[in-house]
Amino acid sequence: METAAKLAAVDRYIEAFANADLNIIRALFAEDASVEDPVGTDAHIGMEAICAFYEGAMGAGAKLALTGTPRCAGNAVAFPFKVMIPGMEMDVIDVFEFNDAGKVTSMRAYWGPENSRQA
Amino acid sequence: METAAKLAAVDRYIEAFANADLNIIRALFAEDASVEDPVGTDAHIGMEAICAFYEGAMGAGAKLALTGTPRCAGNAVAFPFKVMIPGMEMDVIDVFEFNDAGKVTSMRAYWGPENSRQA
Repeated sequence: METAAKLAAVDRYIEAFANADLNIIRALFAEDASVEDPVGTDAHIGMEAICAFYEGAMGAGAKLALTGTPRCAGNAVAFPFKVMIPGMEMDVIDVFEFNDAGKVTSMRAYWGPENSRQA
Repeated sequence: METAAKLAAVDRYIEAFANADLNIIRALFAEDASVEDPVGTDAHIGMEAICAFYEGAMGAGAKLALTGTPRCAGNAVAFPFKVMIPGMEMDVIDVFEFNDAGKVTSMRAYWGPENSRQA
């Protein structure tokens, strides 16, 4: 998968939150993808579980902004960003893994309580 | 594993490069650990292969500086940093996974050619 396509997926993901648009999520992820957010908790597996998860996050008003350059390697991209919800913000790193069709098959989000602050 | 111990491991890793000190690497990693740098390439497996890899990086004069907060989750920490080598620097995200003894069992480094620049 080309670097440009991975970077475009990151941009679309941020756009999904900006517009609270689940259709973008549906287009980005593979049907059988898994979303582990944060790492160490039970994953949301399959499109319906994934959409339910993102619907909740978007419903809370979460918006994302990159805080550094996305790093592409192998079949993956890792990118640092902050999540902004009214009253708070939090530093997160997401790792996307892609299949040959260019769909995200695995999303893992790295963050802990010490990464959040009032804003 | 406590968050504080994971954050201390990140600090020690940066210190290892600052002092070109392989003894710190030996203390951080499990004997059977793997280092995949960048993700998508063959991993260095086992302490001797890992030390040989880091000896090369340190011999090239590489130094590290965090560019954001480390994110701890589950048995892992992900952290964004830049590598500085005379004449160039590069943005990287590393993910460490720890065993119950607090040793790093897996290091995966996310970076690509587009993350480097002259400096």
